[in-house]
Amino acid sequence: MSSASSLDAYSTPLAVRLSAREGALTGPTAGLANGFVQVNLVILPEAQANGFLRFCQANPKPCPVLAVSEPGARGCEALGDDIDIARDVPAYRIYRNGQASDSVAEVADVWRDDLVTIALGCSFTFEHALQLDGLGVRHIEQGRNVPMFNTTLPLTTAGGFGGNLVVSMRPYSAAEAIRAIQITTRYPQAHGAPVHLGDPTLIGITDIDSPDYGDSVSVADDELPLFWACGVTPQQVLIDAGIAFAITHSPGHMLLTDIPDSHLSLL
Amino acid sequence: MSSASSLDAYSTPLAVRLSAREGALTGPTAGLANGFVQVNLVILPEAQANGFLRFCQANPKPCPVLAVSEPGARGCEALGDDIDIARDVPAYRIYRNGQASDSVAEVADVWRDDLVTIALGCSFTFEHALQLDGLGVRHIEQGRNVPMFNTTLPLTTAGGFGGNLVVSMRPYSAAEAIRAIQITTRYPQAHGAPVHLGDPTLIGITDIDSPDYGDSVSVADDELPLFWACGVTPQQVLIDAGIAFAITHSPGHMLLTDIPDSHLSLL
Repeated sequence: MSSASSLDAYSTPLAVRLSAREGALTGPTAGLANGFVQVNLVILPEAQANGFLRFCQANPKPCPVLAVSEPGARGCEALGDDIDIARDVPAYRIYRNGQASDSVAEVADVWRDDLVTIALGCSFTFEHALQLDGLGVRHIEQGRNVPMFNTTLPLTTAGGFGGNLVVSMRPYSAAEAIRAIQITTRYPQAHGAPVHLGDPTLIGITDIDSPDYGDSVSVADDELPLFWACGVTPQQVLIDAGIAFAITHSPGHMLLTDIPDSHLSLL
Repeated sequence: MSSASSLDAYSTPLAVRLSAREGALTGPTAGLANGFVQVNLVILPEAQANGFLRFCQANPKPCPVLAVSEPGARGCEALGDDIDIARDVPAYRIYRNGQASDSVAEVADVWRDDLVTIALGCSFTFEHALQLDGLGVRHIEQGRNVPMFNTTLPLTTAGGFGGNLVVSMRPYSAAEAIRAIQITTRYPQAHGAPVHLGDPTLIGITDIDSPDYGDSVSVADDELPLFWACGVTPQQVLIDAGIAFAITHSPGHMLLTDIPDSHLSLL
């Protein structure tokens, strides 16, 4: 019914999920079903999931928890009706002993009765809010992936997990930066306000033109780089922990929920 | 009853007003009756006041209107009980043909039946909120007046008034700056969020160590200067307009109101 090419900003979240479920949609979800929350997924055996939840609780800026499933459940009512967590994401990564696989189209074949799904908010929500306010989002304007950087900012160790924060960067003029801080502050469940702005070296970033993940974008002389906590952080944390078994979405290939972006706004 | 020396952070707003009314309090009001809104006053003949109100409406960041009195009235119920606008400020300035007088202790002798009082919010409200959140305020820590600068940022001309914005500066680290933006955003009636941060030359400030008003404060290498719209702006605007007759408070010598600071918080 839903070929991937028929999907666009006006598609329903369910149409996007069904297209992924049927194997038609295998690409990134940016720009699809605009106005609905997209989430990062971290799927772990219950034995590790409880510790990882404590880690998320201690590090809410990179890991804002929106929903947690019951062990083994492939649905998640908190995120929407008719969800199959094992098939509704266009591409997954499977981790074994700290090594991430290439992307796979579904994980129904490796599903286990003890798997717990943790859904984390995503920056698409605040990027949409920035655009609605008239602020540009540089990497979108330049048709690139957001630039992301490892930092020297330590995470709070909890539940057996730890490491350093990964951040995404978006450049703005000073007046735009102040407005972007106001807007993203409304969305604590989508990484919230930036964690840093200005001099990148103060958080251990030596070359703003050489991101560790994603693509570089231009920063004008009268602009400041703003740095937000990034959803790549938990994936890096799983690798650093040498996790025995885990599943995540593949970066940029998110789960579409039925939650309007506006529902995550504090006010 | 209230000698000026007995006034402190725990005094009531009325005690501060009565001390000024009796001529005992003639100094600045910073640190008195903490937790209550202090206001800038602009007092104009009705013929000019209407235009000035339009100017304030068009420039809410430097000129956030809290209350406007009826012509000739020396009380203002919106600000508190038992207020005498002509005597309850520790020091006033009288403007004639664009020239500001030295400070005078009261203006009852020059009061007119057509004078309209416009009360404008003041940065003391947000400085108190910053301190309650644990953020330092550099000029307070250093026992100085806040540094203020003329800028090249144009005001919106309205009602026969115009000019350029005057800003106050407070330095913060990046993480503190983000928090300071969040906190001051709550107080649009006390100048609200900063208008600029970072490179001062982008708004026409050539030497951060040489303020046009107030005192200079230190800015550390890992700090950014943040710039807020300043209540000195309307006083400069009156002078630039060559106003025939007007009264304001003397800078730093504010009217204490009965309004708790918290009442100005958006949420």
